This record gives sequence, structure tokens and C-alpha cells, in this order.
Amino acid sequence: MTENIHNPMHEPRYCGIPTFMRAPLVTDLKPLDIALVGVPYDGAVEARSGARQGPRQIRDMSSMMRAIHHVTRINPYELCKIGDVGDVHFNQIFDIEASQNDITSFYNQLHQAGIVPLSAGGDHSITLPIMRAIAADQPVGMVHIDAHTDCCNEEMNSKYSHGTPFRRAVEEGLLDPKRTIQIGIRGAANSPECWEFGPKQGIRIIYIEEFNELGLEKVNKEIKQVVGDGPTYLTFDIDSIDPSLAPGTGTPEIGGLTSFEAQQLIRGLRGLNFVGADVVEVSPPFDPSGMTALIGATMMYEILCILADKLNPKVP
Amino acid sequence: MTENIHNPMHEPRYCGIPTFMRAPLVTDLKPLDIALVGVPYDGAVEARSGARQGPRQIRDMSSMMRAIHHVTRINPYELCKIGDVGDVHFNQIFDIEASQNDITSFYNQLHQAGIVPLSAGGDHSITLPIMRAIAADQPVGMVHIDAHTDCCNEEMNSKYSHGTPFRRAVEEGLLDPKRTIQIGIRGAANSPECWEFGPKQGIRIIYIEEFNELGLEKVNKEIKQVVGDGPTYLTFDIDSIDPSLAPGTGTPEIGGLTSFEAQQLIRGLRGLNFVGADVVEVSPPFDPSGMTALIGATMMYEILCILADKLNPKVP
Amino acid sequence: MTENIHNPMHEPRYCGIPTFMRAPLVTDLKPLDIALVGVPYDGAVEARSGARQGPRQIRDMSSMMRAIHHVTRINPYELCKIGDVGDVHFNQIFDIEASQNDITSFYNQLHQAGIVPLSAGGDHSITLPIMRAIAADQPVGMVHIDAHTDCCNEEMNSKYSHGTPFRRAVEEGLLDPKRTIQIGIRGAANSPECWEFGPKQGIRIIYIEEFNELGLEKVNKEIKQVVGDGPTYLTFDIDSIDPSLAPGTGTPEIGGLTSFEAQQLIRGLRGLNFVGADVVEVSPPFDPSGMTALIGATMMYEILCILADKLNPKVP
Amino acid sequence: MTENIHNPMHEPRYCGIPTFMRAPLVTDLKPLDIALVGVPYDGAVEARSGARQGPRQIRDMSSMMRAIHHVTRINPYELCKIGDVGDVHFNQIFDIEASQNDITSFYNQLHQAGIVPLSAGGDHSITLPIMRAIAADQPVGMVHIDAHTDCCNEEMNSKYSHGTPFRRAVEEGLLDPKRTIQIGIRGAANSPECWEFGPKQGIRIIYIEEFNELGLEKVNKEIKQVVGDGPTYLTFDIDSIDPSLAPGTGTPEIGGLTSFEAQQLIRGLRGLNFVGADVVEVSPPFDPSGMTALIGATMMYEILCILADKLNPKVP
Amino acid sequence: MTENIHNPMHEPRYCGIPTFMRAPLVTDLKPLDIALVGVPYDGAVEARSGARQGPRQIRDMSSMMRAIHHVTRINPYELCKIGDVGDVHFNQIFDIEASQNDITSFYNQLHQAGIVPLSAGGDHSITLPIMRAIAADQPVGMVHIDAHTDCCNEEMNSKYSHGTPFRRAVEEGLLDPKRTIQIGIRGAANSPECWEFGPKQGIRIIYIEEFNELGLEKVNKEIKQVVGDGPTYLTFDIDSIDPSLAPGTGTPEIGGLTSFEAQQLIRGLRGLNFVGADVVEVSPPFDPSGMTALIGATMMYEILCILADKLNPKVP
Amino acid sequence: MTENIHNPMHEPRYCGIPTFMRAPLVTDLKPLDIALVGVPYDGAVEARSGARQGPRQIRDMSSMMRAIHHVTRINPYELCKIGDVGDVHFNQIFDIEASQNDITSFYNQLHQAGIVPLSAGGDHSITLPIMRAIAADQPVGMVHIDAHTDCCNEEMNSKYSHGTPFRRAVEEGLLDPKRTIQIGIRGAANSPECWEFGPKQGIRIIYIEEFNELGLEKVNKEIKQVVGDGPTYLTFDIDSIDPSLAPGTGTPEIGGLTSFEAQQLIRGLRGLNFVGADVVEVSPPFDPSGMTALIGATMMYEILCILADKLNPKVP
Repeated sequence: MTENIHNPMHEPRYCGIPTFMRAPLVTDLKPLDIALVGVPYDGAVEARSGARQGPRQIRDMSSMMRAIHHVTRINPYELCKIGDVGDVHFNQIFDIEASQNDITSFYNQLHQAGIVPLSAGGDHSITLPIMRAIAADQPVGMVHIDAHTDCCNEEMNSKYSHGTPFRRAVEEGLLDPKRTIQIGIRGAANSPECWEFGPKQGIRIIYIEEFNELGLEKVNKEIKQVVGDGPTYLTFDIDSIDPSLAPGTGTPEIGGLTSFEAQQLIRGLRGLNFVGADVVEVSPPFDPSGMTALIGATMMYEILCILADKLNPKVP
Repeated sequence: MTENIHNPMHEPRYCGIPTFMRAPLVTDLKPLDIALVGVPYDGAVEARSGARQGPRQIRDMSSMMRAIHHVTRINPYELCKIGDVGDVHFNQIFDIEASQNDITSFYNQLHQAGIVPLSAGGDHSITLPIMRAIAADQPVGMVHIDAHTDCCNEEMNSKYSHGTPFRRAVEEGLLDPKRTIQIGIRGAANSPECWEFGPKQGIRIIYIEEFNELGLEKVNKEIKQVVGDGPTYLTFDIDSIDPSLAPGTGTPEIGGLTSFEAQQLIRGLRGLNFVGADVVEVSPPFDPSGMTALIGATMMYEILCILADKLNPKVP
Repeated sequence: MTENIHNPMHEPRYCGIPTFMRAPLVTDLKPLDIALVGVPYDGAVEARSGARQGPRQIRDMSSMMRAIHHVTRINPYELCKIGDVGDVHFNQIFDIEASQNDITSFYNQLHQAGIVPLSAGGDHSITLPIMRAIAADQPVGMVHIDAHTDCCNEEMNSKYSHGTPFRRAVEEGLLDPKRTIQIGIRGAANSPECWEFGPKQGIRIIYIEEFNELGLEKVNKEIKQVVGDGPTYLTFDIDSIDPSLAPGTGTPEIGGLTSFEAQQLIRGLRGLNFVGADVVEVSPPFDPSGMTALIGATMMYEILCILADKLNPKVP
Repeated sequence: MTENIHNPMHEPRYCGIPTFMRAPLVTDLKPLDIALVGVPYDGAVEARSGARQGPRQIRDMSSMMRAIHHVTRINPYELCKIGDVGDVHFNQIFDIEASQNDITSFYNQLHQAGIVPLSAGGDHSITLPIMRAIAADQPVGMVHIDAHTDCCNEEMNSKYSHGTPFRRAVEEGLLDPKRTIQIGIRGAANSPECWEFGPKQGIRIIYIEEFNELGLEKVNKEIKQVVGDGPTYLTFDIDSIDPSLAPGTGTPEIGGLTSFEAQQLIRGLRGLNFVGADVVEVSPPFDPSGMTALIGATMMYEILCILADKLNPKVP
Repeated sequence: MTENIHNPMHEPRYCGIPTFMRAPLVTDLKPLDIALVGVPYDGAVEARSGARQGPRQIRDMSSMMRAIHHVTRINPYELCKIGDVGDVHFNQIFDIEASQNDITSFYNQLHQAGIVPLSAGGDHSITLPIMRAIAADQPVGMVHIDAHTDCCNEEMNSKYSHGTPFRRAVEEGLLDPKRTIQIGIRGAANSPECWEFGPKQGIRIIYIEEFNELGLEKVNKEIKQVVGDGPTYLTFDIDSIDPSLAPGTGTPEIGGLTSFEAQQLIRGLRGLNFVGADVVEVSPPFDPSGMTALIGATMMYEILCILADKLNPKVP
Repeated sequence: MTENIHNPMHEPRYCGIPTFMRAPLVTDLKPLDIALVGVPYDGAVEARSGARQGPRQIRDMSSMMRAIHHVTRINPYELCKIGDVGDVHFNQIFDIEASQNDITSFYNQLHQAGIVPLSAGGDHSITLPIMRAIAADQPVGMVHIDAHTDCCNEEMNSKYSHGTPFRRAVEEGLLDPKRTIQIGIRGAANSPECWEFGPKQGIRIIYIEEFNELGLEKVNKEIKQVVGDGPTYLTFDIDSIDPSLAPGTGTPEIGGLTSFEAQQLIRGLRGLNFVGADVVEVSPPFDPSGMTALIGATMMYEILCILADKLNPKVP
């Protein structure tokens, strides 16, 4: 398989059917260490939709990715077996709970095969059903980079929206709030409950203002303190990035991270015990230059490097 | 009220808060003959979404509309009391059936007040709950201009999608298929059932090829024959227009109507007994030039002229 | 000069500083037969502005033009001396009348040198001050292709807007209404006066509906009947074209001409006694694909062919 | 009224006719503390136009705003009565001075009713006629965030352009230069006079280079020193933001503020005695992603919080 | 394989890795009747490039295609074994002749396996090396729908550009000029040689003017007369379509076909003996709405139907 | 000539045929000190093309430039004779080496006339043939601001691509690696050779991470140490800028410079002995807002100031 990986890497970037980062498209899960998955679902969005088209555009732009990381010199393809396993299949896209079950079923397969999933959404509601598969045995900690806490109780009178997944995950015992940290939070709210739920449960919130004051080094130190060595999930909402830099998203909040800061944040997570990760809320219809998808793709690559490094730390 | 109508008409088009066609924004329904309504709902779409933003962009572009029609010299504002009554309010946007109930409730109010609604969608699923209000007492005939029959039985395992409303309307006794005509149909299908249901029920389908062969005059004649004098609904799906001309829609099918043909079609309907009308499936995120919304707005104006003329035919 | 013309014609289209149709940029007017002029002015627009940027984008796209017409085989550069003389210079852009004087002064020079100007606007208000130079000696007839009559008395309480130039031109004795024909007129109005002024003066209006009924051949015949052999001006407003085809304009009205119809219209004018021509109302900020400017540039080329042919009819 | 405010806040963001920040649309000025006003005027621009469409697009994007500030926890709607009073009406848009009179008349009404206006432009020329109403009784100080000083003597041979308002305001005794500070200034000039007028009068200019050296804290301290406790106006030109982040503006100058810096600047102004504020120069035709309008809307929200807090400082 | 085809057809259109028309991605050529091929090459373009990205965007938009044709009721997937075989691999993209060899090698494989290729370009230079494989044994006739004859002798001093393939093909004995017809030709030229070469060789050119005069029926009749029963190639240049409808192309010429006319042209070719076909010159960077790629994808579907019907004419 | 320069500077920015920064278009090289040159060539790009259109769009946006620098108060037009000399002429655009010869010939003329060229690309392959003219007599040092080292050995099996120029320049003895510094390097690679070649030769690479750690002051100090007093070339690849800020480029790598940092970098180079400079890789088709071209134009202006200052340091 390794050889197949290398071929598309050496072709012009616009050639071939786009898989995530030019990884091979696989149907046989067995040999995989890390699965790249698309979750084209945005049925739980209350503002601007379009994240259903996220996996496609991220795959397209991800052909810009190459193998060896310029800072860490990690080549994830040498460390692990990595493949694009395609998209989750949906049977009833108009029913949130049925769609969540479709997602959980898909990830159960991966989880049972011992494969670490790295996913591209879709809206942020997808992380809850992913966790139902991954954290079925024991709750996970979480590094959550986002403009929003996504800890509301309800949105539009629904328990399941892209603004509620982590409240549900705590309630369902999937997410350990004491091992959870949220970074980049900002933007006004109509009720303070979204900000208050987490801290009451033990979640550490680093608002964007505190992020900018602390600086990357201290933030990365604190992340490691909070999540510790236990199994941890990494979820990256593209709206953590400043929307002038990444306009292709449904609920933009100005004053966010730069893509360099996001890269440094992720690089700082090297060594953590990640059991899965996702990049969500890329909405191509609002992304005229395609740069939001490029950031999303590069975040996947940055995450892939730390996942591969942890699974098989051949690189010093 | 007439005077208020005239003022925004004389201001520069970019001025003021946009209502449909610069009509007054009204909260008191009583004095109205025709209500302009927005239905910002696209939760029943299985391809590209975004029609939830349709009413806003149509309102914005509709400031380009003026009062007197250049062909018929109808000035609808002199014939009828016309107001923008705002948007339907939704309580559970993630639940199709609950949202349909919200729509029906809104139109029940209008219907009971004897007001003819002219609506802007939203996806085509909204026409079913509108009919549940308007056709509660007796089934309506329909002039349906569209690329698709919207007579599928199910889409994505749901009875209620934007591809099924007219099958449901026939089944629910809201729509009289023998007084129904569909114009502009085209595009491949995965099953022939969407094309077959209607004709079996008595619906007349004029595919785009037949439309082009017959010509506007004969088509308009046949429309009148089919729908007759009874209460009739007019529904205009923007994807009837060729998508190169109107790209801002979710399910584009090439080879469609020109906007001139659509105007002529509607002008030819003058005198019919319309009890309501809508323009649906304008999806602003796919409309970089805004021309789809302009066509949608102009179709609303063309329809407004024939509605006002029928209600109060002061113009010869 | 002929040789200089040919060089840029053989370079790749994206090369070089863009002049109109890759004609030489000239400062010495003497040897010219036809001057290509830019009039970057949109200070008289009451809807969407941006036509001030028209000459630049038309020049850019006009590099797509080549020398020999595929139907008539006219090569204007072999028949006449043609140059791009740059843009009119404005001294007080915030003052409509002062700006009109700047325009008239510029065209006086051309007129006195016996040069036929072919201009790119700018909004339609520019045609009045051009006529003040060109028709100073005797009134001209006019072929006017547009969605609007531009014969209003006032817009926004101003006598001089882009909706009034031809009323002023008739009043000032520059335009002979009996030798004037307007083609493509459409779109609602807030007052019928814009439609009524012309016919009262003897102007022939062919609304778009009549245009479509008559067909190109009869329209072209009637144009020739109306304008006759006298000195005539040709003014082409890009909003005559359907705005789905040419969205880059300030006052779009759906249901317009195709670009093929516009080409045929102009080709049909061969042999008329044109003393000047313009293409106006191309507004680049609303033209995401650039096709409006391409249509504008091609219309200039089509007009150039008939101007050159008339001035020096070497081609049979 | 408070209750009405809350309703649109709980609807999906794409619903309803867009008012500024979903505030109620009001016609009765009496109960208001703060009026949100649109000034759709760009007739004094010498580069790229389009700011006439600013109020509309800002209103549209401002539906993304919510009630409670995430840092200060100010909820302006609980502190003050806030309403959208619509747009200034213009009678002669082609005449700068007449238009300025229309603006002054509108703000005179607000001023006499004791209402603090928070406005959305329009080009920067609108601030002068606003000041003529607000500062009629006594000169105001000013916090001016912009890429340009707007203190030229003339542009295009006009005393009144968007590059001259503050020179005129000083000359007319409306603006106290010693209580005026300009932040973010940058970009080359054809004459040094625009940079020299202010300092000669006592205006403090913080160029972008000095801003970056000093840092936000020191800049905010100096602002307070300069403007003191007297009545002060806050004017925010969107071109202060880096144009890669906010491209939708007419005179972009690279190397500007981030939106986070702008937010922090405004938050630092809490407690100052503002008698009015505006956000100007948002030009939608140059804003393909809509993010410029989102920044403009968020700046209005940030300013609204400090205005409401000052008027009724119930929040500690 | 048939079953696999049906699955992606029933999923939402935005799901899954995009293959041409949701056909299965195949690596084993054996069972195929028709191969869908991408040729991402635009190295022979002298105006605007970008067609290298054509196969990707066509694949993406082609998910809008479904199985059964609405006019002919042909379901190509029931008639033939159809698969997406991916893209041609290029080894030296900066060398036109080497790249042509890469193309020929790829199609040799298909040709030797008796598979009919339906390709997406890429610029029009790709058809020559395709013909070198397909027409190796005997010259083919050709139906060529395009704005340009592509029969120049040289462009930019090169024998191999996208403006020369059919001159070369005639010279190399691959193309039988007497069985060749070109439809839709238009646009000025710098030398008449591109128009003159073909007719001298026996090629029939139907310029767009003649096309519009004759009408579809007569054109289709003449096509059949010209190409007869022999092996024939069908090449569809997207610039045959009017560029306002299909702006995403490198050398736009206004005044072209509508997409409906193009569909009817292709439907009229049913029964001809096609040995291969392509759709070329879709350039995504110039296609802001994506409609050019949708037209390209639909043309591929229309062609697929007539290819499948010919190979296995089970449908009456 | 000085007077001519001043006129376009005082006209509205959208007026006139666009030359670089409104400098006069010159054909007589003799009186020039600095030549502004366009090199519209992108034939050596292996990812996304379009830089061939760079000179045109940079010229267009560069009308936003003015004369006097706001920090240094340098007015380059008072210090030097500056003119736009147009574009390099290409004879065989499909042949990389022939095109490079065309470039070298053009710059030989400038070099022999003692003129310092400031160029706009075009892809980065153009710098090699420029150096063949400029560094013919003695090797130059280089300040190279870029995301990529452009020191690969081959791309797509070609020695001459936009990823290889500086390896070739070192090999050809044109570039002194010990006097070369590369700043802003980032992004993964498929082979480490691109990063390793330079340092082995003595090139100093400052990756973006080190750049951010060191800060501008130290970086500028080190640049001066590395390049010293000898003749030096400055090459600015627009992809050094973060692609969310400057999306209009072919090989975007997130996490780059801000435009302010780029300005400061260039200002810090004042006093160095530059013999030429370029700004490359601006690709307009990927630049929907035009801000990439604006950054490119402003970089040219910043560089022009330091070039003019060095040549004629009249300003203290």
C-alpha cells in the first residue's frame, strides 16, 4: 500500500480523483491504522448550512498536502497505514437521530477494528455520534478548538443541534468534563447558559482573549495538564479561525485564531493519547476562494502527523 | 396605506429596509388584499441547501421592482391593498412535520382573513403546508412551473421532502390532479415513478421539449383548458429557469426556460382564479451575481400583477 | 501604425497593457479615422454604481478580440486608422454638469479632427455631452438599444441622470426624435412618462415583446426606415442584454436580448451613416465572471466593423 | 418593547426582515435611548463606490449578532431602549451639499429627542453632516479609527468628499482637534497635507506602525487622555481593518488592524462620553464573502455595548 | 457491478468521493464497455488556462446526474458496463509532445480492450493523441461542436496547441475530412487560414449563423449525411455554448449555443457509430457558479446515453 | 517626464489605461533609472496556473498607489526616472527554455542601459532568466521571501519549473548562496531535498516559525549580515503571505506572513545594494476580491521606494 500512496503524491495536484491528502481509497479496513472519513451532514445547523459539502471540498483542496512535515519532519505515511475510507452513508437525512445512528454504526466498525478515525464534517453535531462509538467503553477527554462551547441545552427546541453536542456527551457519560478544555471561545450569546454549563462540570474554557494573553506556550502546557494521559478526542471547528481568514463556515465570529496559531496549537499536542479527531463546519458555499477548505485540509494533515507519531513514534 | 407604498418607490433602490417590492411592512392583516410572505425553510432538501436564505435575498433584489407593468400597464398597488407580512415563524426547524404545521398555521390566518398569499420560499416542500391552509375547504387546481414533477413517493426515505409535495397534496385531497398542469419538466431520474404518478392521476405534464415545440401561445391555451375557472394555485420553482441563467438553486437541470419565457407564461395566466402563489427554491449561496434572486423577485411582481388584476380588475 | 496594430494581435491575449481591442495607444489624433475612447464616469446613477470601472474591464477583456469578422470578413484595421485615445479627463467628478463639460470638450477635439468616436462608458448620462460635441452642427438620428428609454424628465430631482439623457438631447435640439428608434425596452416604471415622452416626439419604441414577435429581419428593416441616410448615433446600453447573461450592470431588467441577437442587430446596421457610437453601463463590480465586459468588448468590435466599413468600404 | 427585541433573537438568523442586530424597527422615536441609523450614501467617493449598499448588507449580516457580550457580559438591550429607525431619506442624491443637509435634518430630530445615534454608512463624508446636528451646541472630541486622516483640503476639486470631513469639521467648529485622536493611519499620499493638517491643529495621529509598537493597552490609555470626559464622537472606518480581512471597501490600504485589535480598541473605550458613533465605508460589491459586513456589524454591536453601558451603567 | 452503480445513485448528491456521474471507480478494465476518463491537461492553451482542473470539477458536479434519460428513457447503466477509470497520468507536463504520448498510451490500452472512451478534458489539444490511439487502424469521421475550427497551422509558433489538433489529425491520416462536420463556429480571427483549411479538405463547417437559420432538425440531418455509418468521433468543446451560459472556459466567444440546443444536437446523433467522445475546455477558475461544469457533466451524460444505446440497443 | 507622472496621480484611480503605479508608459529606455516590467508567463507551474494574468491585474490594482511613503516620506518619482516599459514579448510560450531566452533578451537590454528592473510575474521560474541578464557579469546575493525554497532539482521531470530556479541559479554561478537568505519557508514536502540543497550551499533559511520567534528586527539585521554590500536581488513570492490574506496564488501554504510583516521586511532592506527585484506568483483567477493583486502592487511600491532611495538618496 505504501507504494500506492507515493504515486499520487508525485502527480500534479489537480490530477486524479480526490481522496483526503491523496491517501489511497480503501474498502478493506483491516490493514489500516488511521482512517480518513467524510461525514457529509449538516442537518443540525440553525444558521447557514452547506457543511454537507465539506468533505468534498476538503478532499479536493487536500491534494495540496504533501508527505513530510517541515517542522517535525514526521512522514505519517511511513509511520502508519493510512487510508481514505469514504463517507458515512445516511439513510434518513431528514431525521437527526437516525442520522446520528448511521454515524455511530460506521464508527463502531472502525473502533472495533482498532482504527483511529480522523474525520471531516459536516456540522459539529457529528462529534456526538462519533463519540458514542469511540467512547463506548470509557469516557474520553477532549481538546476542543472552537468559537463556541457547543454546550447549549437546546437550539430551536431540539436537544440535538450543532450547538449542543458536548452537553449531551457529558450527560451520556461519553465525555469527561474534567479532562476537557475549550479554546478560542468568543462571540455574544442570547443566554449565558452555553458558557456556564461547562465550567460547572469542570470544563476549562480559554476564551480568545485569555488565549491571546497567555500565548501559545502556556496554552499548550495547560492543555496537557487538563487532558493528561487518558484517551482523548481532538475536535477542531473551523470557526475557531478568524472568519475573514476562513469565511466558509455557518456561524462566523470575528476576532479568532490565525491559521498559524491553529497549526502551533496542534503541533503542541504531540504525544497526547488521541483516539480520534475531526475537523468540522467547513461550508464550501461561503468559501469563494477555497482557503477555508485548504485550512481544513492542512489541519487534518497537522493532526494526522501527531496521530501517526503517537501510534508509531519512529521519528525522534 | 397607498401613500406609504409610493414613498419607498421614489427613493433610490438601495435605501431602506428591504420589504418585498418595497411594499409596506404590515402587522395588521385586516386591510390587506394580497399578502407577501417569506417562508425561510429548506429542511427538506436532499441536494444543495440554502433556500432558507431565499426570502432575504429576494426582498433585497426586489427593490428593483417598480409599480406599473410595461406591457399590461397594470399597477397592482392601485388595484389592491398589498403588504409584506414578514416571514413564517418556525419553532422546530429540525422537524419537517412540525415546521409544516408552523407554515399551515400562518397561512390559516391569512386564509381566514380572505387574503391571497404570494410567497417566497424556501424549498418546494413549503407548498404542501400552504395548501393545507388554502385548500382546506376545497381542492385547488395548479399551474406548476418547474424542472421536476415533485411527485416522488419518498426521498431519502422520507414522505416529506421537496421532491414529494404534490403526490402528498393529491393524496390528501388538496390538489385536483385533473386541474393540474406541470410545465418545464426535464432531467434524468433514477426511477420513472416521479414522471408516472402524475399522468396516472390525470396531471398534464409538458416537458421542456414539448414546451419548445408547442410555443408559448399553445401552452398558455392548454393551461387555461386544464385548470379552468376553479380555484387554482400557481407555484413557480426557480429551477424551471435554465440554471446558467438562474444558478442560485439546489437541484439545477440544464436546458430550461429563459426568464422571458417565464414572464410570458405568467402574463398568459391573466384572468385565472388564483387563490395563492409562490416562488420557491431560490438559494442565494449559489447565486454569485444575484440574478437568480432578481428573476425570483420579478416573477413575484409578474404574479402580483395578475393576482391584483383578478381581484380588482379596474384596468381594461 | 498598421504594423503596430498587428503585433499585439499575435501575442498571447493576457500580454501587454490593455488597450481597446489591442489597438495602438495614440496621443496624436491626426492620423486617426476612428478613436476608441473610455469615459469612466458613473456619477449620474441612481441604482447600483460601478460603471466608472467599465472602460478598464472592457479594455482588459477586449484583448479577446481579433481582426477579421467571421461573417462579413471585414478587417477594420485594414480599412481605417484606429487608435485608443485613452480616457476623458475629469476635473470635478462630484459635479454632473462640470463632468459633462469635460466630456464635451474631449469630444469637441475629436469632432473637429473629423474622427468618429467609439466610446465605452460609464453610465448612460455620458451620451448627452458626447452629442453636444458631435451634433453641435446638426441634430443626429439615433439607434438606441436599451432596456430603458432614458427619456425621464427627472430622476432624484435632477435633470441630468442616466435616465434622462435623450429627453435632454431632444430638448437641446441635438437629437432628431423622428429619426430615433429605441429597441429592447422593458421593465416596470413608477410613472408612464418615460414611455410616453418619446412617442409624443416621434420616437419609435420597439419593446422587447414586439422585438421578439417581429424578429431580427423586420426590426433591422424598420431601423433603416426610421433613421434613413442622415448622420446617426448608435448607443448600446449593456442592460439591453438579459441580465442573467450580462449581470454586470446597475439597473438590470430580466427578459432581455441574447448576445447573438445584439450581434445580429448591429450587423444589420451596416451601411448606415454613423457619426459616433458607444457601449455603456458595464459595471464590473457586479460581473463576477467577466462576461458582461466581454459582451461589451465584442459589441465594440461589431460596431467598429460597421463604422470602418462605412468610412472606407473596401470590402464588398 | 424589550419583549419584541427578544423574539427575533430566538429565531433562526436567516428569518425575518433584517434590522440592525435584530432590533425592533421603530417609527416613534420617543422611547428610544439609542437609534440605529442607516446612511446609504456614497456620492463623495473618488475611488471605488458601493458604500451606498452598506446599510443593507450590514443589516443582513448583523442578524448574526446576539444579546450578551462574552467579555463584559453587557446586554445592551437590558440597559437601554434600542431601535432601528431606518435610513436617512435623500432628495437629491446627485448634489453633495443637499444630501448633507438631508443627513443633518435627520440627525437633528434624533439630537433634539436626546437620542444617541449609532450609524452605518455610507462613505465617510456622512460624518460631517451628522456632526452638524450632534455638535451644533458644542464641539465634540473624536476617536477616529481609519487608514486615512480624512483631513485633506480638497479632493477632485471638491471641499466635500470622503477625504475631507474632519478638516471641514474643525473649520466649522464642530470638532475639537485637541480632543481628537486618529488611529491606524497608513498608505502613501500624493501630498503631505492630509497628514500635516491635523497635527498642526492639535490632532494626535497614531500611525499603524506606532500602534503596533505601543500595543493596545498604551493606545487605549492615550485615547482616554486625549479625549477626556467631554462629549465625544466615535467614527470607525472599515478600511482601518486590513483589506485582506475586510476587502469590501473603496480605498483599501494593506497592513491594517485585525478585527480582534479593533474589538479590543473599542472595548477599551468603555466609560467615555460618546454622543454618537458610526461605522462607515463598507462597500458590499467588493465583499464576496460578506465578512466585511460581518465585521462592520460586529463593530456596531461592540460600540452599542459601550454606549448602552455609559447611558445606563447597571452592569458593574 | 450493476448493483454498485445503483448505490451511489440513491445517496444524497454531495456524498462520497466524486466519480464521473457516480459510476464505479474501476481499475480492472476487462468488464467495461464504456470508460469514463479524465485528461487533466491544459499545457497547450494560449489564452486563459485552468482546464487542467476540468476533470475534477466535472466529476464533482456530475453527481447531479441520474440514470434514466427523461426523453429517450435510456438507462445507460442497464445497457452497458460503465466505469470511471480515473485520469491519464502525465510524466512531463511541461512538454506537449511527451504529454501527448502519455495520453496516447493510456487510450491504447482502452482501445486494445475494445472499450469506448468518453473523456473529460483538459484543453482541446488532447483529442489529437486520443485519436492516435483510437484511429490507429483507420481514420475516423468527426462531429465537432465548437466555437473554433481548431484547424490553425500554428499557434505561438507551435504545431501542437489547442487551436491546431484537427489540422494535425487530417495530416496524420487520423481524421477523414470528408466525414467531418464542425458546428457552432464563430468569432473573429487574425488570419482566415483557420476557416479555410477545413473546407479545402472537405470538412463541412456550419457557422453559428447558419446553425440558427437551419434549425436543429436540418443540422442533425446534415450531420448524419456527412459522417455516415463509419467509425466516428464526437468532440464537444464547452466554448460552443454561449459564454454567458458557460463562462468557465479559456477562449470565450459570445453568441453561442444554448445548453438546450446542445442537448438536442447530441440526442439527434443517436444511432451513429461513435468510437469515442470527449467534452473539453471546461476551466473551473472562470466558472464562479459551477454551471459550466454542470453543462459539461450533462453533455457527458447525454453522450453516454447514445453511446450505450448504440453498443447495446435494448431500448426501442 | 516628471510632469506626466504627476497627472495620472491626480486623476480618479479608475481612470486611464493602467500602468504600474500610474507611472508613464515608455518606449525609450534611455532616460530611465528604474523600469517597471511585466512578465506574463506561467508555463512552469505544476499546481494551479493563472500567474500569466498577474501583470495585468497588478497594474490595474496598482492605481491605488500614490507617491509619498507615509513612513519614510520617500517620493520615488522625485528621486528617479521611473517608467513602465510594458511586458516581455514571448515567441514560443509552449517551450520553457525558449521563453526563458525571451526573458533574458529583454532584461539584457535593460541591464546594458544601466536600468534597475522591478518586475511583476508570472511564476517564479522567471527569476532565473532575469538573473541570466542581471548577474551575467558577477553573481548576485538574494533576499528571497517565499513559502518555498524553490531549490528542488526537478519538478515533473523538468529542470526548469517554478520550484527549481534558485538551484539552477546557484549551479549556473548567477547566485551566490553564501549571500542568499530565504524567509517565510513552510509547508510539507514529498522529499527533503528542497530544504537541504540550500543550507548545504550556504543559503540561510528562516522558516516561518523562526521568523515569528525572532521578530522583524532581528530578521532584518540578519538579512543585512547575510547579503552585505554586494549586488543583490530581491524576489518576493506572493505565497509568502498567508493565503487567506492573499488567496490568488497557485501553491498556497497556510500559516504565512501578514502584509504588514511583509511591508516591514521590505522597509528594513533600505540601503541594500539591489540590482533588481520582482514580485511573482500573483494568480488573478484565484483572487476573487483582488486583494492579492493589491498586496502585490503595494509590495512593488515598497520596493520601488527603497530602490529609488538607494539610487538617489536625496531623502535623509
